[in-house]
Parts: sequence; C-alpha cells; structure tokens
Amino acid sequence: MASPSSSGFERLFEPKTIAVFGSVKRDKIGHQLITQLSAGGFPGTIVAVNPNAESPPGYPQILGCSDLDQSPSSPDLALVAVPARFAEGVIRSCGEAGVPFAVVFTSGFSETGNSEEEQRLKNTAKSCGVRLIGPNCAGIMDTGSRLYASIEVRALPGKTAFITQSGAVGGAVLALAKTRGIGFSKFVSYGNRVDIGEVELLDYLDTDPGTEVIALYLESLQDGRAFMQAVRRVASRKPVVIIKAGRSVSGLRAASSHTGSLAGSDEIFAAMIRQSGALRVPGIEEMLDLCHGLAALPPMEGSRLAVVTNSGGPGILTSDRAEELGLQVMESPGQLRQRLESFLPAHCAFANPIDLTVEGTREGYRRTLQAVLDSEYDGVIAINVATPFLDSVDLAEGIAEAFAGRRQPKPVAAVFMAGEIVEQGIETLKRKGIPSFPTGERAAFVLSKMREYSCRAAGPADREEDRQRSGEADRGAETQKAVLPFGSGAPVPEPDAVSFLEEQGFSFPAHRYVTAAAQISEAVRGLGFPLVMKVVSPQILHKSDVGGVRLNLGDERQVEEAFADMARRFSAQEFRGVMIYRQVSGGLEVIAGIKQDPTFGPVVLAGAGGVLTELLRDSAVRIAPFSRPEAQEMLSELKISRMLAGYRGSAALDREALAELLVRLSDLAIRYPAVGELDFNPVFVQESGLLIGDVRIITETGQDQESSSSRAALS
Amino acid sequence: MASPSSSGFERLFEPKTIAVFGSVKRDKIGHQLITQLSAGGFPGTIVAVNPNAESPPGYPQILGCSDLDQSPSSPDLALVAVPARFAEGVIRSCGEAGVPFAVVFTSGFSETGNSEEEQRLKNTAKSCGVRLIGPNCAGIMDTGSRLYASIEVRALPGKTAFITQSGAVGGAVLALAKTRGIGFSKFVSYGNRVDIGEVELLDYLDTDPGTEVIALYLESLQDGRAFMQAVRRVASRKPVVIIKAGRSVSGLRAASSHTGSLAGSDEIFAAMIRQSGALRVPGIEEMLDLCHGLAALPPMEGSRLAVVTNSGGPGILTSDRAEELGLQVMESPGQLRQRLESFLPAHCAFANPIDLTVEGTREGYRRTLQAVLDSEYDGVIAINVATPFLDSVDLAEGIAEAFAGRRQPKPVAAVFMAGEIVEQGIETLKRKGIPSFPTGERAAFVLSKMREYSCRAAGPADREEDRQRSGEADRGAETQKAVLPFGSGAPVPEPDAVSFLEEQGFSFPAHRYVTAAAQISEAVRGLGFPLVMKVVSPQILHKSDVGGVRLNLGDERQVEEAFADMARRFSAQEFRGVMIYRQVSGGLEVIAGIKQDPTFGPVVLAGAGGVLTELLRDSAVRIAPFSRPEAQEMLSELKISRMLAGYRGSAALDREALAELLVRLSDLAIRYPAVGELDFNPVFVQESGLLIGDVRIITETGQDQESSSSRAALS
Repeated sequence: MASPSSSGFERLFEPKTIAVFGSVKRDKIGHQLITQLSAGGFPGTIVAVNPNAESPPGYPQILGCSDLDQSPSSPDLALVAVPARFAEGVIRSCGEAGVPFAVVFTSGFSETGNSEEEQRLKNTAKSCGVRLIGPNCAGIMDTGSRLYASIEVRALPGKTAFITQSGAVGGAVLALAKTRGIGFSKFVSYGNRVDIGEVELLDYLDTDPGTEVIALYLESLQDGRAFMQAVRRVASRKPVVIIKAGRSVSGLRAASSHTGSLAGSDEIFAAMIRQSGALRVPGIEEMLDLCHGLAALPPMEGSRLAVVTNSGGPGILTSDRAEELGLQVMESPGQLRQRLESFLPAHCAFANPIDLTVEGTREGYRRTLQAVLDSEYDGVIAINVATPFLDSVDLAEGIAEAFAGRRQPKPVAAVFMAGEIVEQGIETLKRKGIPSFPTGERAAFVLSKMREYSCRAAGPADREEDRQRSGEADRGAETQKAVLPFGSGAPVPEPDAVSFLEEQGFSFPAHRYVTAAAQISEAVRGLGFPLVMKVVSPQILHKSDVGGVRLNLGDERQVEEAFADMARRFSAQEFRGVMIYRQVSGGLEVIAGIKQDPTFGPVVLAGAGGVLTELLRDSAVRIAPFSRPEAQEMLSELKISRMLAGYRGSAALDREALAELLVRLSDLAIRYPAVGELDFNPVFVQESGLLIGDVRIITETGQDQESSSSRAALS
Repeated sequence: MASPSSSGFERLFEPKTIAVFGSVKRDKIGHQLITQLSAGGFPGTIVAVNPNAESPPGYPQILGCSDLDQSPSSPDLALVAVPARFAEGVIRSCGEAGVPFAVVFTSGFSETGNSEEEQRLKNTAKSCGVRLIGPNCAGIMDTGSRLYASIEVRALPGKTAFITQSGAVGGAVLALAKTRGIGFSKFVSYGNRVDIGEVELLDYLDTDPGTEVIALYLESLQDGRAFMQAVRRVASRKPVVIIKAGRSVSGLRAASSHTGSLAGSDEIFAAMIRQSGALRVPGIEEMLDLCHGLAALPPMEGSRLAVVTNSGGPGILTSDRAEELGLQVMESPGQLRQRLESFLPAHCAFANPIDLTVEGTREGYRRTLQAVLDSEYDGVIAINVATPFLDSVDLAEGIAEAFAGRRQPKPVAAVFMAGEIVEQGIETLKRKGIPSFPTGERAAFVLSKMREYSCRAAGPADREEDRQRSGEADRGAETQKAVLPFGSGAPVPEPDAVSFLEEQGFSFPAHRYVTAAAQISEAVRGLGFPLVMKVVSPQILHKSDVGGVRLNLGDERQVEEAFADMARRFSAQEFRGVMIYRQVSGGLEVIAGIKQDPTFGPVVLAGAGGVLTELLRDSAVRIAPFSRPEAQEMLSELKISRMLAGYRGSAALDREALAELLVRLSDLAIRYPAVGELDFNPVFVQESGLLIGDVRIITETGQDQESSSSRAALS
C-alpha cells in the first residue's frame, strides 16, 4: 500500500480540537479518554459528542453536544467509542463535518467475526475522506503535543515511537516502561487496521524529528512487500525494532484468529528482517531494553566489548552472555593493561572483565572507563553491584564523567544491581544520559543488537542496490514482467522446463530429448557415457518412485533397451519420450528453488541436498529480488557452507557459481511471476561451475499463458 | 569431600551468641554487620571483639570486649571482619574458646594471589576445630532464626535456600528478590571456600525442614564427583536450581582467576546437571523466577499448557515461548471447549490461548480456570494485562478461587502486566499463594523447567541404579579398580589395545597381528578379503598421514606387497609389524571414547563419525558410570540419532548395540582409572551389531603399571 497522505499526519498527532464520541458516563471509555487527555495536559479543545449532549462528570468545562455542528471549532481528530453498530454513522458525520482523522476504539468487528460491519466502516471512511486508526484499538499518544488519546498508561516523553497491532501489548509496554523511566515520542495502537497501518506510519515516523527509534509489535502485515520497502527506507536512518508474534503453531493459530489475517512463515519473516535491516527481538522486555539503549547511546561500531565491574560473578555472567551473542570479550590489550595497572590497586583483575572489586571507587570507575574508551574496545558494560552500605550515586557520577564529552563516542551501558539500594544511582545515570539495565546479560543483548544495527541497516552500499531493485520490481512491476512459455496449473514437462531455463542462463548436463527409438543413435552421439534416462509423461510426477529414472547406462545398446522398457511400461500414461543426460559425478549436492509466500511473494531457497537434506534441516531463504552479497550471506548461513569452502582437504567448490545461481533464480522469480514453485534438486556444485541434476516447475494456476503450441515448439 | 559434621550446622544457622571480630567504627564491616543483625531482629546475644573493646556506635547495649573471655556466654558463631593478616589469630582464639563456627568476611586471600595466608587460615581452623565459611564472602542468613549475618540486603522469609560462590551475585539476587517480594529460608555466600562448601551445605539443606528449593550460583566445584552425588541425593526430594558461570572463554578466564580454581568444560557440567537431576538456569532473573514457581506451586506432571488471557498479543507471545521450550500449547479438547462455550461470551477465543478479551471478569477467570484445571492440561498461565481503569484485584481473586482447594493440584502461574497499575493485584495473588511473573514468556520458562524437574529428578527408577552405581564407584573405589596390562604415558600399541579390549567384550573385525612376511599366508587364511593393513610402530601416531594404512587389499599377493612396502618405508621407525583386519563395509560411522575431566573424572563421549564429525559438531557426553537408559538418552541427543533409526528407507541400525558399547566404556573407565583417553574412531554401527574400526588408548602418566614384558606377552 502506498502512502499518499502520510505527510498530513500532523493533524492526527497534533490536533487542536478533539471530538470524543460515545457515552461519557463514569467507567465508560469516553470518560476514561477524557480523563487521560485532561490529566495529560492536552492544550487544545475537547468536545464530547453523545445523544444527550452530556458533559463528562467531573469535567464541567468540556462541552457536551449532540452533533458536531455544535462544536465551537472544527475537530481535527475524532475519538470514537460508540457501540459497533453506530460507528459507521459517526464516521459519516465526521466526513460531513470535515474531520480528517478518527481513532476507533470500538471492538466487535472482524476480531469477533463481524467482518461485514468492518467492511462497511472502511468503505464509508474512504468515501467520505476520513482516515481511520482502528477499530478495536487502544488509541494513540504523542508526548510532544501532550496528546494522550488512549486508555493505556500515559507514556513518559522519549525518543522511541511505538506502533502496535495489539493494544494489550501496547499497554503492557507503556506500563513496564514507566516503571523503568523509559519514554516514548509517539504511541499508536492500530488494532484491526482497516486504513492507516504500519507502512504509512513508518513513512511518517521516518521524517518525524521527535522520533529516533521505531518499535513495532506485529502479528500480521497489511502488505508484506510494501512493509519491507518501508523498513528498508527507514532503517538506514533510524533503527527499527520488531517483535513478530506467532512464531509457534499455537501462537500462529492465535495470531490468525485474533487479527483475522493470514500470518506467514516465520522463517521468511526472519529473512525480511535481515534483508531490510530491521532488528528483531523476541519479547517486550528485550524490546524495551533495546529501544532504551538505541535512543540513548552512540552506535556500537565493532564487536569488542569490555566489562568493567566491581564484582566477579555478575561480570562473568555478562561475559558468558555477550560471547554467546557474538560479541568479543577479548583480553585487555597490553597498552590498556599497563595504563590500568598504573592507577588501579594490584588486587584488581585487569584481563576483562576488569574487576575493580568491592573497593571500586568513583575515581576508579572514571579512570578505568576513560582508559577503556581510549583503547580498541567498541563498547563497555559498567556494572555496579551494591550493598545497602555502598553509595551508588558516587559510582554513577564516576561512570558519567568518563562518558561525558568524548570526541569519538562509544556506547557505555550501565548495570546497577539491584532493587531499592541502587535507585538513586540509576536516577543519576539517567540524568547524565547513560541507560541502565537490570542485569549484565540484558545489557549484553542490547549492545549485541546495536552492533547488528551498525553492521546491517546503517550499513553497506551493496544493500542499496537491493533496495533500489526491490523498489523497481515492486513499483515498475509490469514493465519488467514476462509470460512463461508454457501453460499453467500443472508441472511443466521436463524438456520444456530445461529448454526455458537454459535460455535463462542455467546450466544442465549435456542432454537430448528423445521421443522415438530411432532417434537414440544420433542423440547419444557426443554425449559420452554413462547416461541417465528419465521418462517424460504429463501423468508421472514422481519419476523415481515408478521406475521412471535409469542411471549408469553405459553404452548405446543399454540406452535402447532402457527406452524400449520405458515405452512399454508407461504406454498407458501418455508416454512422450525420455530425457537423456550425461550422468554427473562428484560435487556437493545442494537444493535450490523458488516458492511463493502469501505475505512476501516470491522467495528463493537454498539448502543441503542428498542424504544431508533431512539430517541437517539446513536451509536459507531470501525474498526476491536480491543481489550477490545477499546470496553470499545466504550461503554462509548454511551448515554446508563449510563444505563449499573445501572440506577435509578436498578442493574448494565453486561457491561463486552457486551464489550466481541464487541471484538468477531471484531474477527469474521477479520476471516470471507465474512461476509458482521451482525446485532444483539436486544441484551438483563442482570445483568449477555447477550442474542442475533435476528440475521441477509448477506454474501458478489462472495465469494467462500461451499453451501447447509454444510448448511443442520449445520441446 | 565427605560431610562428617553437616548435621551439626544448627549452631551455625541458629546461634544463641555471636561474636563480631573487627572494627565496629561507622562504615566498617563490623559495624554494618551489627546494624544488619539488630535491624533483622536477631534474638540472641551479640558481642563485639576488638582491641579497644569498643561498643559499636549507636548500639550501647552491645558489649565491646578485647577478648572472648569477656563474653558473657560462649559464642556459637564468630563473624570475622579483621584485616587478612589478623584472621588466622582470630580463628585460633575462637578455637581456644570453643567457638564451633566462623564466617570470615575478610578478603585479600587467594582471590588476590595471597594463597599462602589462606592455606594457613585453613590449617589453623582445621587444627583447632573451627568450621569456616569464607574467607572473602558476604556472609549467611537464616530468615527462620532471624540471623542476618551479612552486609547484603536482608532477605524476606521464604522456602528457597540460596548458596552462592559470589557474594555480589548473592547480593544482587537478594535485592532483586526483595523488590518482587520473593523470600528465602537461608542464604550462604561461601567465597573462597576453604572449608564448608556446596557439598556439605547441600546435605544439610536436604534435611532442613524450612527449605523446599535449593538454588546455587557456582563458578567452580570443590569436588566434582562428590557434588554430583550430593545433588543426586537431594534432587530426588527437593529441586536444585543451578547457575554455572563461566560458559564462555572470557567468562571462564574470569571465573578461574576470580576464584583461583580450575573451572571445567561447560559441556561436561551440562552432562552432570542432566545426570544428577538438577535444573540449570542461565542467569539470576531466571533463577529467581524458577525458585519462585517451585516454592509456591504443585508439580507440573505433563507438558500440556493452557494459556488463559484477557488480551491476544501477550497470549501469543507466551505460546510462542512455551512451544520453543518444549511445552505443548495444544488446542482445547472438545469437551473443554463445550464447557467454555456454555458460560463465556461468543466473542472470546476458545482454542488456546483462551482469550476472555478485555471484558474478562473475576467470574470469567474463575470458571475458565476451573474448567481448564478439570481438563487434560497439566498447567496454566493466567494473564491479565491491565489498563489504569481495570480492577486487577478482582481478577486476582477470580484466579485464586479457581486454584484454591483442588484435590489434584496443578500449577497456575499468573502474569499481571504491568507496573504500578497491577501492584495490588499481584499482592492479592501472593496472599493466595499464586506466584506471578513479569511476562508470560518468563512464566512459560518456569513451567517448562518445572516440567523438566518432574521428568528428571523426582523421576524414574532407572536413575536410581545410576545413583547407586556412582556411589559405589566413588566410595568403594579401590576394591573395584584394576590395573591396565600395559605401560603408561604413551599411546598403547594397537595389538595390545585390541587384545585388551576384546577381553573386555568389545568387538573388532576379524584380525591378525603379523610381525614377519612369513606369517602372512597363514594369517590371512579365514579372514576373507578385502583386507585393511595398518603399520604397528611406537613412533607413528597418525598412521594415515604417513601412508601407514592400506585399504582394499584384495588377495594374498597384495597383502605381501603391502607388508614389504611398509617394512621398507618404516624400517627407521621401530617397525614392529602390521595389524591386518577384514575390511568393514556399510554401517553408520560413529565416534565413541573416554576422556578425563579435571572436575568430574572419567567421562564417555559419543558423536557423529566420518565426514559428518566436523560438519555436524554432533556429540554427547556423560560422566561415568552410567547405565543403559542414560546411554539411550545420550544417543537421542545426537543429530545422527535419526540415522540410527533407519534413514530414508534404509534399515534401522543396531542402536542397542551402540548403547551397550557406551555402557561398557563407562564401566571400563571406572574399572581402569589409568585409561587417560580412549578413542574408537570410527565405530561402524550395522543393522545387527557393530565393529570398531580403529582404536587409540593413552594411559595416564605416572600410573604404576606393569611394563614391556606383559606387553610383549599380550602381543
């Protein structure tokens, strides 16, 4: 979905006048919304619209009207909390009065099976020009404009915008964040998302000066490819942190019924995350931690982490976790060590974790951190485990002094443990701009993800190519598309598939299509032996299972006998002849192919082939199109990657050729959208080049393809 | 280390009189300890012992003395916070005065390299009969006897005993626990552990009626096998929850320097956890969560989990995590569904997660949970995501009503989100005995571990056999031990190794040891062809690398030629002849062997062999001895387990024979402690039986073995 009017979201987030539709009696949502708006200090005008023109109890200054006509100023935003059956009428009246935005809190639409009423609401909003958030949502907040149009806990001000499909997750995050003093720039719960959704909001937040980090909780997507493009655009400037719920069978079941949407494969969602440069987190605690770090800290430019602590145990637990997450907790370089030894007492540990011991002082933290930040390390976790008799404020000052005013800033994450005894210290850190985390393990997670962001999203130019190509593929779509030279709905006959793919630049072993015994003698000439023979019949899907494949045919006579045998055995199954191939020996067997994902469209897969397929469950996937560096990364995710590099003394295999094959598949998938499914199984990757051992193509049904005549011509 | 006097720990944890040694000036540890003891309401007598016989400022009622003679009653416990150089003298005076226990807080011993003074402290304590905790520790607490002999946050009363090697981790856990209202029965920080350590404490806590759950933070172990035995004994009655720090390279580096101990391989520690029935957690948040659940809830007898929620998103996140952790979030059975539909509104989701929606009431929670607890589910997570306008206390009551007074109790974990708005609700839950967790994901972790406990520790009779056998092996040790029939320190010659192992019941392919060409004709008779030839020479370690292995010898002449060739090529390397084996074909290649772990002694390993070894990094390990069920579980951990079961249509392989081989190895390792290292690489596992393709044995140096004469006899 494109984003035609997202630049006009200012009236949504900074309204001058708000109309609240629905009962404003105590305990009703309308009343709760007015309570929130008032308590949050909303500076504009609020009117309450309800049949009896009631003012909300306790808010005599708020005008109650029965109609928008009675509003003293034209509302920019309507908050709708009327029963579901009245919602459409309210939106219509908003349209007539020129209200540009409405947030519909009302539930009882598609999430309870009432899709019809939801569709009517959507149509009406569209036809009368009202942009909608919701229905079945928990509202919106903008801490900058003091807009708290939500019944959830009011957010503290901050730099993170949080967009959530689930109102409850939104509420839980806001409440948890508040206890930790973590704030937000904006909050949007979009619920059933009949109109404004994650794509437009991302585009808007990209340009929002108050927002530096964007967090999303998702169960499904409006438009997978548009979302991926939006994340790609935004993530190069602002980190995008995503929770995608519904990873498991039961979670997916719930996500599908809960939002009424089709949730896609989690593996492909994970590929989207990688390709778009977003950061994925499993749950809300990790999300909060990460946003907290991203909003406060400079980038983590490398993976070398120092741990400075006043206690051994927590330092070790932090190191353990950091290494598991791919950070390098390398030993202190000699120069740093010398510098540390010059001012720290001898009983300290200098190796990293650097342990100041329980006697660590403000001065000790300051000088140690300064030395560490001057050295090769890319980031630091500073741990203070307090006792009731230790002044954590003083240590916080020491840490802040080291962090302050450096020319080349590096991230310093603090861990002050635990509970009441460090509250003052954490408060001090916050004032100085240093985020703190409940445990060192959680700080390690944050820095590892910040490292990932520096590597990926803000990252290399080669991604830019993918960004552009995907954009072209999606936008300029039709100009690049082509029609397959064969019919739809069934597996494509092997001779047709092979001819077509050879034209597209894919390599097969030398081969002939033989339809009659008389052709054999000429056909085998120049192929060499041994040969492989495969039956061609539109009725036979699994050739091997029915004896339709013969290996090791060593001379012409054996080929003739095999042909006669197949012709006889498959005479009742539309026998059309056989494909004869030069038999491939050696090389690593790999599987590659194209599939269609319901959310993201064409994807390319690669994995271990042969006997290893099932054993290793080794596969990687990317959303098409992508270019060579992405294909390379895809290969490096595979367990068999090590075998490609030359395994146990054997020669290295042609990894480049395999990467090229994947890119070609990706191009093919984009150019021929009718390729529903394509499998190369196996591909023999050799020391130089590769050969495709078998191919299967299934076209999408319903595509308007040329039919048997062109097929015949090709075969 | 045995536990001779652990039954006498009552005076340690319930002292009537305590002597505090060290300065009691403000800000000194002595003063802090007295503050803690007093504030905690210690009911006994405290005396302060210091050169000036000072009473602590602010505590005029506490007697200051310069000598224990002046104490009105004989102390049961000394708290020692004097400088390191005075500690030994204090312990001596304690011994003279008959004080049975001392907790030494003083640091500056082995953790800073001062091992000499530590050794003197240890020797003195031993010789004068004072049992020590510490030095360099954070003290002990017993909430039952109101003993707070520690400078850490005072624990709330509870059912979990917490033993920690790191005082700081101890302090952090206590402080975190307090903010969540989680309590402890006992707390022990044992620091450098010169005397009382984890083994004795475990044995004591096993019989402590106030302790129902035991948690440990460990960096190293005093005595690996004694610890394993202790955990085995205790874990069948009380859950033992363990954090083992030092999983990573840097963590291990810090753990080793921090405690001055040799920390062992984490993989083997993990095996110990599995074999002993303990529960491992990665960090302190997980530990607290799990102890909280274990102390409050009935066992989780199966893996079927229901999630009852008033909000979709958090329910989905919970399901996702639960499934990842091996719980079954299966769909509601038909009968349950019918029952739910009879009283819940139609807009609820019934499938599991069961979503009461934001309109969920006390009554709704109560009846839903009752229905779920009556059904097949083994446990429930009940989630309430609140808004500031929702009464969480009411919902807490509903949950508690469903949980209360059931005949067959099942665990119900609550998740009330989040922050201030649910504090009252969580308080209500606590009063009713229902533990709550910050997120559904964390509750899922707890229930998955409780499930693990029910499966493992409280578990099956077959573990009992291992418990007994290990006990015998460790205790009755010497009676069962035997001496290897060959020398020490070097690899054992292959003919000797094979003969020895055949006597022990291991199977090799048919073979002959040939030392002269003239023997060949007779030797090959009856072996069949093809044959494998391997050079025998004490100087050649890696036979394949130097051409010392020949495969596919097809007849007697080829054998003769190969022998002549080897005799010539290896003439300068003490050529002693060759081993000739019938060549094995087919079967799955597996690696198996014995290694010595510095912490746990002999261990047995198994893993993928051949080309898969490096590719899969597939191995499993167990501490010897163990019996068949443990060997079976070991095999089921391997990725190649699927191949043993018959892979891609091939016949099943003899998994039982492989399990038997592992048990035999375990017996061998116990019976012959001089086997330093043994490798079978590969073992060919066949459809019926298995054959060992190659063997290498390295004996421990320094063992008093018979030497070359017996070797010669054997060969």
